[in-house]
Amino acid sequence: MLNSVSQHKTSVSRTENFNSAHRLYVPEWSDEKNDAVFGKCNNPNFHGHNYQLIVTLTGTVDSQTGYVYDMKVLSDLIKEHVIGVFDHKNLNLDTPYFKDLIPTAENIARIIWEILREKIEPELELKIRLYETERNCVEYPA
Amino acid sequence: MLNSVSQHKTSVSRTENFNSAHRLYVPEWSDEKNDAVFGKCNNPNFHGHNYQLIVTLTGTVDSQTGYVYDMKVLSDLIKEHVIGVFDHKNLNLDTPYFKDLIPTAENIARIIWEILREKIEPELELKIRLYETERNCVEYPA
Amino acid sequence: MLNSVSQHKTSVSRTENFNSAHRLYVPEWSDEKNDAVFGKCNNPNFHGHNYQLIVTLTGTVDSQTGYVYDMKVLSDLIKEHVIGVFDHKNLNLDTPYFKDLIPTAENIARIIWEILREKIEPELELKIRLYETERNCVEYPA
Amino acid sequence: MLNSVSQHKTSVSRTENFNSAHRLYVPEWSDEKNDAVFGKCNNPNFHGHNYQLIVTLTGTVDSQTGYVYDMKVLSDLIKEHVIGVFDHKNLNLDTPYFKDLIPTAENIARIIWEILREKIEPELELKIRLYETERNCVEYPA
Amino acid sequence: MLNSVSQHKTSVSRTENFNSAHRLYVPEWSDEKNDAVFGKCNNPNFHGHNYQLIVTLTGTVDSQTGYVYDMKVLSDLIKEHVIGVFDHKNLNLDTPYFKDLIPTAENIARIIWEILREKIEPELELKIRLYETERNCVEYPA
Amino acid sequence: MLNSVSQHKTSVSRTENFNSAHRLYVPEWSDEKNDAVFGKCNNPNFHGHNYQLIVTLTGTVDSQTGYVYDMKVLSDLIKEHVIGVFDHKNLNLDTPYFKDLIPTAENIARIIWEILREKIEPELELKIRLYETERNCVEYPA
Repeated sequence: MLNSVSQHKTSVSRTENFNSAHRLYVPEWSDEKNDAVFGKCNNPNFHGHNYQLIVTLTGTVDSQTGYVYDMKVLSDLIKEHVIGVFDHKNLNLDTPYFKDLIPTAENIARIIWEILREKIEPELELKIRLYETERNCVEYPA
Repeated sequence: MLNSVSQHKTSVSRTENFNSAHRLYVPEWSDEKNDAVFGKCNNPNFHGHNYQLIVTLTGTVDSQTGYVYDMKVLSDLIKEHVIGVFDHKNLNLDTPYFKDLIPTAENIARIIWEILREKIEPELELKIRLYETERNCVEYPA
Repeated sequence: MLNSVSQHKTSVSRTENFNSAHRLYVPEWSDEKNDAVFGKCNNPNFHGHNYQLIVTLTGTVDSQTGYVYDMKVLSDLIKEHVIGVFDHKNLNLDTPYFKDLIPTAENIARIIWEILREKIEPELELKIRLYETERNCVEYPA
Repeated sequence: MLNSVSQHKTSVSRTENFNSAHRLYVPEWSDEKNDAVFGKCNNPNFHGHNYQLIVTLTGTVDSQTGYVYDMKVLSDLIKEHVIGVFDHKNLNLDTPYFKDLIPTAENIARIIWEILREKIEPELELKIRLYETERNCVEYPA
Repeated sequence: MLNSVSQHKTSVSRTENFNSAHRLYVPEWSDEKNDAVFGKCNNPNFHGHNYQLIVTLTGTVDSQTGYVYDMKVLSDLIKEHVIGVFDHKNLNLDTPYFKDLIPTAENIARIIWEILREKIEPELELKIRLYETERNCVEYPA
Repeated sequence: MLNSVSQHKTSVSRTENFNSAHRLYVPEWSDEKNDAVFGKCNNPNFHGHNYQLIVTLTGTVDSQTGYVYDMKVLSDLIKEHVIGVFDHKNLNLDTPYFKDLIPTAENIARIIWEILREKIEPELELKIRLYETERNCVEYPA
């Protein structure tokens, strides 16, 4: 019924979660400027979020397995390299990524992309979506 | 750890809600034709929806703030120019936009895009997603 | 493995949806008082909602069918007697129930309970939950 | 159609959100015991959550307004006395409630109940549901 | 601030998921009667669902840990005794529970209650909620 | 207010659901290899899922109706040609599509695309999203 190979690529997505504390501020700025730009996100004692992470891989479907990528393998990769590093952590203090980089959702998504990009075969396109709250979401690359 | 500037664009999305009444019909058409095309959406006494609006901006991440756009500012813009105009309103009777335009989800999304396009810097790409129900959604531009 | 009959009752719930327009106001009150009490819900041109309705029946599990109540039958009952009457309607103008009763979520839930109570066997306990928005919900009886 | 006053009580619920950092540990315990009991929730640099709060009031429906309680008023009360105190805060360090009380979801729910109990008329029953994550929820009183 | 011990009980809930195949039919009945009662749920080749399971325990909050029950321990218990037995299984053929019991959501919930009741301390009240689909849910005990 | 015709295309999406059993395995492979690749998805007695299907059409908005496509017509098409064939079925045994094709989410999405592509006018772009679980999703074409 499906004799010919599909000519379109397919994407597959896996959702995982992590819960972290963070603070948004630029050390070079005054307290006033940090408050003006980041508001309550600049609380020096930190606040936190349940982050929802959606990792999407785009490629061709293997004609035998019917998979673009094994979702179990993708889940394990995310858990080892992202969740294990970010979950129940203070993003500013407990991870190596946000010493000189402000942990906005935009930057967290980009860091996750860079972490996973090295672990995923280059022929697969990689995209990160990250919900910081139910109402705020980022996507990288757009 | 992230010495070079990212070469990819990032998108950020903000979700807001409004609850409105509307009616779908073409004044030039007969009742029969309106009923045939719009069915129960042509109720002359109106019906209504909880609309879920997702506004997406795509651009570059500011290297200092780590933001594409401040979500607080985007939320305030949407509330002032969209929610304040559409929420708890009759889209046909209480807004200036649907006097000569039928308030389908497609057209509501386009109107919201035109309203916000003027308020958002032109270097940022703007996209509107609008859920009329949990099962019916439109996106503009596609 | 389950030789004895369970001594506890079981509840089953079915979720359905309807989309309606309504207006909240007390005809005997001045416009000022209606505005003070009902705010934007008092828009004379109506507004609307996607109502989510959850109907719960509590009783004993039939030992042969394993059912408290056939969910298909419950869905059909709700569709015939509630959805068919309220969906894509103006609750104030198009239904017989809110001529002298203000269509708040509390009263809509109670009306649905009274409609369904007559259709469901009296040995089954009946409960109505109604979400007017994702954030506002009523339950009758509490 | 509804001549008689309903004899059942009705409950109304309002959902709000706050995002906070916290740490679970008993100061009197050794690090080993805190780790054994609280695991990664004992991170000394804190972690955080998007808390979803559902406040339920149970009472009689006012025959004129059709309300058990004005959801706008309830929302404002929650925002002033709970969200304003907990949102974008470190529950351990920035609030007066968890100096000598461990900020588990159970205890946060109870504190919210005690805060709101004083603000809500005593004839209305009050219940708190608090989701710490999508999968973990507490309810007080049960 | 909270000098006295709370006099109310608290409930805690944990959500887990399993994906299973099943078939609803009564072996003693004719095909016609099974079709009449169970409709498409009587497909002899089975169909399946993503079941969402919510386990609720009600008891007192431990004054030191602030826990009614450690959610990690509850999650592990559910995974070992329920998810490990039901997930990616044919409920009729692969589990010992539905040889002589029809695997309706009502009966699955009761079986899960009986499995967990033995593993949870008797002073804690136990309740099972099971979503078979987003629209169909059972609760045991009611 | 909107004198000119929009130059952008609009997409509309409709969500439907079906519940099916399936098994993932390659008949030519040994049991060991099937287990190694497909794990518990290779259960010979099948398992199942609640599939959530989102069908997206992209095109121009009709200037009179304000529709890209009538969502009622799209819903009916999906129900007749997809839900009617897959719902409460064993995808491997009860449908003609997976005799020689492994019913992974990737392949199910592609089959649904091929089924609907013939029913939808060619000037409309067609895209399929399919959630096998809340955490696993595929999109075709990517």
